[in-house]
Parts: sequence; C-alpha cells; structure tokens
Amino acid sequence: MGNDKIVNDRYSNEKSTDLGERRIIEILANHFESMPNLPVPFGDDVSAVNLDSKQVAVLKTDMLVGKTDVPRNMSLWQAARKAIVMNVSDFASKGVQPTAALVSLGLPRDFMRKDIIEIARGLNAGAREYGLYIIGGDTGESSDLIISISLYGTAEKTALMLRNGAKPGDLLAVTGFFGKSSSGLCLIMDNCKASADLSEVLLNAVCMPKARLRDGLALGSSASVTASIDSSDGLAWSLYEVGKMSNVGFIVNSVPVASEVRRFAEFNHLDPLELSLYGGEEYELVTTVRPKKWGDAVSAVEGVGGCLLPIGKVTRDKQIFLDVDGKKQVIEARGWEHFKSKL
Amino acid sequence: MGNDKIVNDRYSNEKSTDLGERRIIEILANHFESMPNLPVPFGDDVSAVNLDSKQVAVLKTDMLVGKTDVPRNMSLWQAARKAIVMNVSDFASKGVQPTAALVSLGLPRDFMRKDIIEIARGLNAGAREYGLYIIGGDTGESSDLIISISLYGTAEKTALMLRNGAKPGDLLAVTGFFGKSSSGLCLIMDNCKASADLSEVLLNAVCMPKARLRDGLALGSSASVTASIDSSDGLAWSLYEVGKMSNVGFIVNSVPVASEVRRFAEFNHLDPLELSLYGGEEYELVTTVRPKKWGDAVSAVEGVGGCLLPIGKVTRDKQIFLDVDGKKQVIEARGWEHFKSKL
Repeated sequence: MGNDKIVNDRYSNEKSTDLGERRIIEILANHFESMPNLPVPFGDDVSAVNLDSKQVAVLKTDMLVGKTDVPRNMSLWQAARKAIVMNVSDFASKGVQPTAALVSLGLPRDFMRKDIIEIARGLNAGAREYGLYIIGGDTGESSDLIISISLYGTAEKTALMLRNGAKPGDLLAVTGFFGKSSSGLCLIMDNCKASADLSEVLLNAVCMPKARLRDGLALGSSASVTASIDSSDGLAWSLYEVGKMSNVGFIVNSVPVASEVRRFAEFNHLDPLELSLYGGEEYELVTTVRPKKWGDAVSAVEGVGGCLLPIGKVTRDKQIFLDVDGKKQVIEARGWEHFKSKL
Repeated sequence: MGNDKIVNDRYSNEKSTDLGERRIIEILANHFESMPNLPVPFGDDVSAVNLDSKQVAVLKTDMLVGKTDVPRNMSLWQAARKAIVMNVSDFASKGVQPTAALVSLGLPRDFMRKDIIEIARGLNAGAREYGLYIIGGDTGESSDLIISISLYGTAEKTALMLRNGAKPGDLLAVTGFFGKSSSGLCLIMDNCKASADLSEVLLNAVCMPKARLRDGLALGSSASVTASIDSSDGLAWSLYEVGKMSNVGFIVNSVPVASEVRRFAEFNHLDPLELSLYGGEEYELVTTVRPKKWGDAVSAVEGVGGCLLPIGKVTRDKQIFLDVDGKKQVIEARGWEHFKSKL
C-alpha cells in the first residue's frame, strides 16, 4: 500500500494552529511538483493554465466554512452569496471576468430542505450579480457547513495583474475605504456599540460584501497596473504579500479609513488605524500603478462608477512603513489568518 | 439586506438525511439559472464551458470528507490520493485528460505538520500518477478533514462521452470486475473475515482505488461509445443514471463479479451480487457501445492494457433487469449515497 512513512523531523508535531494558514500553504506547495511553464506563480490570488500562446484559462478555488467564516447574524443566503463573492474578488484583483462556477457543498445532517433552498438561492444570486453561472457541483455530508467554490474564466496572459510586478516609484492605490467589515465584526463579537444607522452600514459590510469586479476589469483594460491583490486578509497583509512577491516595500502616506469607522472607533475607544489596516474580510483591490499611467487608471475606475485612492508609493527598501504628518512607524505583518484569527 | 424569505411549503422541514444526495443536487440545480449553450448537461460526471466552436474547457469539483469518505484503516496519504482519484475517474468516464488540479483543504485544529506533509505527498502522488499537476489551492480550519479537488482539462466537444447518448440495441460494457471495494468495506466495518491474502486484495481496493483514465481516453479516441459514466456510486446506480439521462433501460446478462468477491461472499455467507451491484466506491467505467464498433472499442481498451467486458444491452423499455439463466429480476435503484449510506 502506498502509505508514506511519517516524517521524523523535530518540527513534525507542530499543530495547524501554530503554523497558521500561510505556513501550511507553503508546506503544501513545497511538496507539489511544479507544472512546466505555469503562467501564474503558485500562491497568487488565482491559478492559470496556458490555452495557447496568448490565452490562459484562469482557475480559483476557496471554501467557506460555517464555523470560521460565517458570523452568527449572517443568513445562509448571505453565507452562500459570500462564498461566491470572495472567489470573484480574487478574479477581480487579476482583472479577469469569471464565467462559470462549480459548487462543492458539505451539509450537516440536520440541514433542512428550506436551508438548502436558501443556500441555492444565495449561490445563484451571487453568481448572477457578477455575470457568471453555476454549471455543476456535488454535495456530501460534513460536520460544518462547507461551501467550496471553483471559478473559471479566460484571459490574455499579458493582461493578468499579478502580485509580482510592482516597481519602486510606482504609486500605491486602493479602490475604497477600509475598516467597515472589521468594525462590523467587533459589533457582532465584542459587545461594541453603535447607533442603529451606523450598525446597519457596518453589519451590511460584513454580511453583504461586494467584489470590485468592474473596477478590476477596468484597471486590467487600462494597462496601467503593475501589481494587484485583493484585501481579503486585511490591507497590511496585502501589502506584505505584494512586497514579498515583487521584492519591494511601501511607504503609506494616508490610510483610507472609512468615515463610519472613525465614528465607530471614537464611540468605542478603538483605534481606527487598527480596524482599517489589520481587519480583513474586506474586498477592496490594492494595486500599484505606473506613475505615467495614473490618469488612465483613475479614468478607468471612475468610468465604471468606482474611485481610486492614492495612499502611498512603492519603495526599493523592502520594509513597509506608515508615514503620516512626518511620523514614521512600521506597518506590521498581521491580519486575518485561518487557524490563528477567530470570529 | 438580501436575505431570502423562508420557504413555506410543507416539505421545507425535510432533513438532508431524508432527502439524500441526489434530491439535494436536484433542489440546487432547480434554483440555478442555466448558462446558455451549456455543452454538458447539469448532473453529468463533469461540467464544461465552450472555448470556441470545437473545444471545451472541462471542469469538475468533488470533496472528500474525513467522516464519511475515509474508512478507519486508510492513511492520510491514501485519503489525499483518493480525493484526486475520485475526480480523475469522472474525467476518465468522459474520455478527457485532466491537466491541472486545485486543492481546497479544510483541516482540523489538531492536525500536525507531519499530517499536512502526508496529505501534500498523497495529493501530489495522485496527481502525477494520472499526468496532472496541482497548480493552486487554499486552506482553512474545519471540524472534519475536507479535501475539495477541482480538476481542469480541455477536449473536443464532439468527443465527450456523455451520459445521455445510449440507444436501444447498444451493447453495455464495463472495464473490470466488481465488488472488491464493498467487500473490503465489509471487512473493515462489519466483522467479516477473510484470509490474509484475500484481505490484502480487498483492502487494497478500498485504500488504493484506481481511475480508469487510460481506458477512458482510449474509448474516447475509438469513437465507439454512445454513453459513459463511472461506477463510483455502484453499478446499479450507474445504470439508473445513464437510463434516466438517455431515456432507455437495460438488460444485464452477466454481473462481472470479481473472483475474490465470490470467495469472500461464500466464506461470510453474503450475496456476491449484492456486493457487486450496490456497493460503490469503485471506479470502473460503465459504457454503452455501438454494436458495429464493438471490435474497435475492445481493441482500444486492450491496446492500453485494459479489458472491456460485455454485460448486457440497452433496451427501449426503461426498466433495468438482470436476466441470467432465464431468471429475470429487477435491478434496484440503490447504491452508495451520501446522507443515506454509512461507512
């Protein structure tokens, strides 16, 4: 029988919770043989396979797990829609339109027909909202609710906005303001308080996240972007990922904190920068833009009803700093991480 | 908020365990809008999207869940390999070579580094055994071990062996003998007994299943097959699925019971037909072949070291009968089904 021998090194007993999501992905990747001529490096937001000399098939899979990804006030409809949105966001960050989705669904034994219908409607709504269709899937029994989504699309290889192209001097820009999702999670988990109006905005950010697909497609067409990632694990982590893959650092001159987050933070004596830099579960795009193409990038995003906010620039020095009003401090390499973060 | 209203019909409280895997997939499919010009109907072994007028991208996702799909004597290496094999088998049944896989991995908190390495090696071994590469993936925390695999490949649209093409008069054929996996599961679960030699064969069938990829690709090239499916839910279920999608029935004249299964059944006072027809977790191909092309089909499979066993024929009458030695009995519509069957 092909059973592998247990690995006898002194680290072999480290637990998943010690390792965290990123180390686990590194361990996995180190044990996979690489496909020759892979058009997208392992570890980018999506994967791809060459179709011909110009076109690639773009693929992505990510699962939503009830226990860790669905806060208690999120409905099944919303959870199912979110499972689609979080995968669409990865396509958005590469500038690729997904066309089809497959669903692999793990359901607890006590789930009822009405629950299944609610999940099906949420999946379909999420798919149609972003112009794709669900074309297949499978289901089985599991202890947690598991919604594993696989997305497919095609793209010109040279048009993909990967994580590894940022150059010193490029401008750093994001597609929106940060911190609403993490503030909403604080409201749900931590006994924080907010007015009814403010609560609605913050909870809506958690339960009805939006993927910046139109913005990503527009940026892709503008040929102005040198690197791109989504902010699903938090703005700080996104910067560290692009920094690592592009071999650069960043100076951030202004953190785009949402006005609602400033109000929420003040009322609850929280740090708005903490909420905006290290939150996660947010789906803005974080991009680096060639300075000469800045006008094109802004026009492209504004042309589809979005906004592109300049927040800093790419540096040769590989560290990542916040530099506001002459006060320079290190942005830390932390954010949302499975096995380590908690809902 | 986009929350759906709860469905108020009298069936809405039926549980997953009452509905079973097949009804759940029907409910889901009924709530998904259909992609126009879908080249493969929803519910076939794989899904596909048109690439151009001739080529399609072929996609499949299916998850292995520790609790329901991994018997207790299967190692993590074997479980990970099996997650690949069960998806490759679906590609095999359509005559399509998969080229790339993505992995979405749900890990319990107490899994250790050595467990993760064992899973990574099993995944890589399964992929390379069938000529594909793992090009991406994600991981998160879950209560059960979850290994969700997504496969990708391309094919000529007209070469796909779908479930819906069987015609009355076609020959019914399979790529091997049945019952070893279900006998192996009986050994593991039910206090059955067998000699050491026999146990090894039967447990190997459970822990190291093989996908009939070479056979499927050869059959696809022979242009002799009118319908095809794999037997992962049991031979009987496979016949019912092809029967339903092709609007036909079957007469089975001989059930290809493995010789080891006859010996095992005799020793344990079990019915070898029951083990071979209704077992599941077996990955033979079940195909219908144009009578004039029978010789081509056999040569194709034998050319890659396999065998094609004729076991009956396709009928206009939509029932499915076993007719051996003039004794005719109905083959029942049952087999392995998630939420209903138990490991």
